[in-house]
Amino acid sequence: MVRPSVHPIEAPPLTDNAAILPRQTLKDVQGMPGTIGGFILRFFQFSFSIASLSVMSSTNDFPSVTAFRYLVAAVSLQTLWSLSLAIADIYAILVRRSYRNSTIVRLFSIGDGITSTMTFSSACASAGITVLIGNDLNDCAQNHCSRFETATAMAFMSWFAASPSFFLNFWTLASK
Amino acid sequence: MVRPSVHPIEAPPLTDNAAILPRQTLKDVQGMPGTIGGFILRFFQFSFSIASLSVMSSTNDFPSVTAFRYLVAAVSLQTLWSLSLAIADIYAILVRRSYRNSTIVRLFSIGDGITSTMTFSSACASAGITVLIGNDLNDCAQNHCSRFETATAMAFMSWFAASPSFFLNFWTLASK
Repeated sequence: MVRPSVHPIEAPPLTDNAAILPRQTLKDVQGMPGTIGGFILRFFQFSFSIASLSVMSSTNDFPSVTAFRYLVAAVSLQTLWSLSLAIADIYAILVRRSYRNSTIVRLFSIGDGITSTMTFSSACASAGITVLIGNDLNDCAQNHCSRFETATAMAFMSWFAASPSFFLNFWTLASK
Repeated sequence: MVRPSVHPIEAPPLTDNAAILPRQTLKDVQGMPGTIGGFILRFFQFSFSIASLSVMSSTNDFPSVTAFRYLVAAVSLQTLWSLSLAIADIYAILVRRSYRNSTIVRLFSIGDGITSTMTFSSACASAGITVLIGNDLNDCAQNHCSRFETATAMAFMSWFAASPSFFLNFWTLASK
């Protein structure tokens, strides 16, 4: 005779069901706009870019190099953008909503793409100049090498924090 | 009596079936691996990166600047990668198949991400140096400014052609 019994194996079907619809699984991943992870990413972007901005601005000869002026402009933009999005994330966390509106996510994604590309390109250009001054010309005596290097490194860190935001937004858009 | 025959028309229903599922619609967008558009993108990436490589290598003093050595390394990698993928695209076009295997698309996407980021960063670093030499130091008399600028511009063009490939692959991955 067949005896009814508890089947703890019945849980997996839910997972299987979720695996059938992979489009929905990433919706609440930490790092998306409106999540704690997203806010932490924004906070790091903001901190690193404002550190880069202040270190670079503290040197008196940065305006003589175009790449350093561009770095200042790019990290300023990154700072403003990350601050705005951090505020938007705090609002979303407080009202316990996440941004699922496609238009807003598209706007965030485009903004992240522009600011992170600018930050990355300015960091690369500054790194090129810094390495030229420090290693190729060995001219650190009359230049603020360490400050230039710090500002460049901070800009790269800001970009590292900005990329996940961009890719998660892009992934959200694509998987809709 | 039923006569067995070859039916070359049996392929279209597959396409119609794919159109019913909206997740599948981007699968055949031009620019994806295995399409004519994808091959054209690869061809432009390859042409621009090999042009950048040859122009930069034709100057005798590029090894004195780290950023220019990095540019040569990055566009060499881009050249090899784009050539390999162009051959893969030609093969796919000849056998009338497109790459729908998720693992292969992921591999292409990661490779595109790495090579296009390297090309872009090296182009930015070289642009920083070129602008420093040309505009800030006004020292074009004893430097190959025009060749450096050409090589940098070609590397940027190669990156412009590489980005759509990367984003389309990434979009394909995300929309699976």
